[in-house]
Amino acid sequence: MSDSGEPPAAGAIRAVDVIRNKRDGHELSRAEIEYLVRGYTLGQIPDYQISAWLMAALLKGLSRAETAILTDTMLHSGEVLDLSEFSAAKIDKHSTGGVGDKTSLVLAPLAAAGGLVVPMISGRGLGHTGGTLDKLEAIPGFNVRLDAKRFREVLRACGCAMIGQTAEIAPADRLFYSLRDVTGTVESPFLICASIMSKKLAEGIDGLVLDVKTGSGAFMKTEEDAAFLAELMVETGERMGKKTVALITDMDQPLGLHVGNALEVEEILEVLRGSGPEDLRQLCLELAAWMFHLGGRATTVALGKKLAAELIQSGQALGKFRQMIALQGGDPRVVDDATLLPHAKAALDVVSSRSGYVRAIQCEAVGTACVILGGGREKKEDSVDPAVGIILHKKVHDRVAAGETLCTLMYNSEARAGLAKTLLLQSYQIADSAPPPRKLIHRIIPAVQES
Amino acid sequence: MSDSGEPPAAGAIRAVDVIRNKRDGHELSRAEIEYLVRGYTLGQIPDYQISAWLMAALLKGLSRAETAILTDTMLHSGEVLDLSEFSAAKIDKHSTGGVGDKTSLVLAPLAAAGGLVVPMISGRGLGHTGGTLDKLEAIPGFNVRLDAKRFREVLRACGCAMIGQTAEIAPADRLFYSLRDVTGTVESPFLICASIMSKKLAEGIDGLVLDVKTGSGAFMKTEEDAAFLAELMVETGERMGKKTVALITDMDQPLGLHVGNALEVEEILEVLRGSGPEDLRQLCLELAAWMFHLGGRATTVALGKKLAAELIQSGQALGKFRQMIALQGGDPRVVDDATLLPHAKAALDVVSSRSGYVRAIQCEAVGTACVILGGGREKKEDSVDPAVGIILHKKVHDRVAAGETLCTLMYNSEARAGLAKTLLLQSYQIADSAPPPRKLIHRIIPAVQES
Repeated sequence: MSDSGEPPAAGAIRAVDVIRNKRDGHELSRAEIEYLVRGYTLGQIPDYQISAWLMAALLKGLSRAETAILTDTMLHSGEVLDLSEFSAAKIDKHSTGGVGDKTSLVLAPLAAAGGLVVPMISGRGLGHTGGTLDKLEAIPGFNVRLDAKRFREVLRACGCAMIGQTAEIAPADRLFYSLRDVTGTVESPFLICASIMSKKLAEGIDGLVLDVKTGSGAFMKTEEDAAFLAELMVETGERMGKKTVALITDMDQPLGLHVGNALEVEEILEVLRGSGPEDLRQLCLELAAWMFHLGGRATTVALGKKLAAELIQSGQALGKFRQMIALQGGDPRVVDDATLLPHAKAALDVVSSRSGYVRAIQCEAVGTACVILGGGREKKEDSVDPAVGIILHKKVHDRVAAGETLCTLMYNSEARAGLAKTLLLQSYQIADSAPPPRKLIHRIIPAVQES
Repeated sequence: MSDSGEPPAAGAIRAVDVIRNKRDGHELSRAEIEYLVRGYTLGQIPDYQISAWLMAALLKGLSRAETAILTDTMLHSGEVLDLSEFSAAKIDKHSTGGVGDKTSLVLAPLAAAGGLVVPMISGRGLGHTGGTLDKLEAIPGFNVRLDAKRFREVLRACGCAMIGQTAEIAPADRLFYSLRDVTGTVESPFLICASIMSKKLAEGIDGLVLDVKTGSGAFMKTEEDAAFLAELMVETGERMGKKTVALITDMDQPLGLHVGNALEVEEILEVLRGSGPEDLRQLCLELAAWMFHLGGRATTVALGKKLAAELIQSGQALGKFRQMIALQGGDPRVVDDATLLPHAKAALDVVSSRSGYVRAIQCEAVGTACVILGGGREKKEDSVDPAVGIILHKKVHDRVAAGETLCTLMYNSEARAGLAKTLLLQSYQIADSAPPPRKLIHRIIPAVQES
C-alpha cells in the first residue's frame, strides 16, 4: 500500500503524532507542546514538521490552556530576567503595531518618571508598520544593543531602558517566528499571543498594558478579531500571574501626524512637552494611566491619567527621556534641539485635486509609501533611512480645498518620491461629507476578576 | 510590529502566497500548483513550505480541478511511458491496500493471458499492509528492478511485467510522499488520489481498475470515505482521458487465508489453478472482468468474468505467470512446486479458548502480527523475512469450538512468535452468534457517462 502512515511507536511522544492530534482537533498535553518547542529549539525536530504543526494550529486553533502552555514553554526556552532587586512595580506596554504608532517612546520615560520600572524590549519595523528600535536609532548615537548587565544599570539609573530582543530572550519564539513568516502561519491569534506574551513576560515584569490596534493599518482589521486576540493575551497574562489589560485602539488612519523614524521622534518630543497631535497625546495619557494603575501608582485610571498629565506638565517625563538617551549613548541635546535629528534633503507636497472632506486615509498605503522612501523594510536585511517620511497635514474628518496640501513627503531620492506620491494620493479618499466619527479607544478588556 | 508578514511582491508567484491562498480556502490556479510541484522537485522550494501547504490542503481540501492539476503536474514531473507500440489495450489494476491483499499477482498474468497488456508498477509494504513487490520477491530470483528497456522486453514477450517504482516515474510524488509520511498529511483523499493516479498514469495505460478497500484493515475505514476517494480517482482518471472504474471491496478481515509473502504466493497459485479461498477467487474474477471490459476484450462485465474463469480453467493464466517469472529472473518451477518457496522453521497454533462464532477479525492486528514476525516493515529501511506469516483457519462467520485452532503462525523467531500470538488472540472476537453478513463488493463506481 503506497498511502499508509507508520504505526505509532509505543510510549514515547513522536512529532508526527503531535501534528496529527492537532490536525484532528484534539487538545494537546503539556508534554506534547513541550516536546515540540524544546525539540525544535534544540534542532532535534526539523522545520518541516513544525511548519505542518503550525498550519494545523492556525486552522484548528488552540485552547486557552494550550495557548498558555505554548507561551510558558517559549518563555522558558531562554532567560527570564530577574528584576526582583527593584522594589517598584515593573510594568511594560506592548502594541500590536501600526503606522505612526510611536507611543512607546513617550511611555517608557513617562512611566519611569512616575516611579515605575519599565524594562522595554522592542522590535524593528517590517512591512508597512514601523518599529520602536528604528525610531530610537534615529537619535544620533542611541544604542539599542545593551547587554543584560548594562540594561540593568540603565534601569537602576533612570527606571527605564529600551533595547532590542537578545539571543537569550525566548529563542524558541525567534525560531518559530522566522518559520511562520515564510509558511503562511503568521495570522493566528493563538500563535501571535504566544509570540508576544513569551517575549514580554521574559522581561520579568509584574504587569503589562496591551495596545491592540484595529482598522485598516492594523494587523487585526476588524474590532472583533482585535478583541479576540486581546482577550486571549489578557487571559494568558493572568494565567501566568501577571496583571494584564488590553486597550483596543484605532488604527484606521496613522496615529499623530508624523510617519518616519526621525520625524516620529520629533513628534514624541512635542507630546513630552505637553503639545503634539491630540490623538497621539490622548492615547499616551490613557496607556500611561493604565500602567500607573496596574503598577499601584494610581488607585483609579482617572488618577493615573492626571498623574501622567502632571509629569508631562512639570517636564519630568521629558527629563527622564533626556536621561535615558544619555545613558544609552545617544545625544541628549536632541531633546531640546530637534534639528540635531537626521533631516531629509528635499520635501514634496501632495496636493488635493478636489474639495471636500477626508473620508479615509488608507493606512497601509501610507506605511508602504514610507517604506518606498527608504524609511522601512521590505525584507529583514534592509537598512533604514532615518530621515525620510511623511508629514500629514490633513487627517480623517478634516475639510480640504482643491489645491490644498494633504501631506508632505520628506525624501532623499527623487525616483522614490514619485512612487510614494502616487501611493499617497491613492491613500487619501476625499468625499463630499465627513465620515461617521470613530473612537480612538474602542474597548478596554480588563482581566476577568476572580469571584 | 513583530507579527506581520512581508508585503506581497508584485507579479511573480511566491510559495508563501500559494500557502496562504490554500489556507484561506481559495482554489489555486494551474500556475500556482505547477509552481509548487516543480519548485519542490527542483529543490527550489524548501520542505517546510511544502509541508505547511500539505497541511492546508489536507484541512481545506482541493477541488476536483485542483486535484486533476496536481495529479497531472506530478505525473509530468518525470517520465511517462509510451506504450503505443502495443496494439492491445494497456490496462492496470491498483488497490489501496490491505491485509492478505494479493490480487495483483493473479491479475497481471490472468489479464495478459486474455490479451491485455499489463505494465504494473507496484510498491512495498509499510505498516500493517503488505506490498506486491515483497510478495514477488518471495519467489527465488524474481527481479522487480528491471530498467525501462527490459520492462518493455518482458511486456513484449508475455504481455505483463511487474516492477517497482523507478526514479524516473513521478519523482515529485516520491518527494511529496516522503514528506507527507512524517508531517501527518497522509490522510487526505485529494493527496492520496494525486499520488496514486500520477504513478499509475505514468505507466502509459489506457484504462485502470481501482480496488478501493473499506473496513477495519483498510486505509479508508468507512464505506463513505472509500466512496469519496473512489469517486475522486475515477473522475481524475476520466479528466485525464483514461477509462477508469473503482470497486469498493471489503477489507474488514484479511482477504483469503494466507498473510505473509511466500504464503501469499502459495495462495495465488491455488487461485490460478482454479481453487483457493472463495473470497479471494471471487474478487480476482471480478477485477479481471472489469479489466477485460475496460480493455475491450468483453462487451459486458459478465462476459469478462466468464473469460477470466476460462483462462484459469485452461491453465493459460498459470502458464502466463510461469512465463513472467522466468522472464524476470525468478525460478518458474515454484509454479508447480510450492515447496521451492521459502518456508519458516516453526509453526504455532493459536487456539480458541471458547466456543461460538467468529464475529470479527481485527485486520490491522493480523497485519501487525505479520510485521512482528518479520514479514513486514515498521520503517522503510527494514528488511523482510519472506517465509513467515499467518495461516487463518477460521474466518468471520465460521463456527469454532473451544480448543479449536483459529490460525497458525509460521515463524523463525520464538520471541517474536509469542508477541504475535497475543496480538492474534486479541484480534479474533468470538461471540454466541454470527455477525450480519458483509458483502465482498460493496459498490461499483463507474465513470460518469457523457450525456
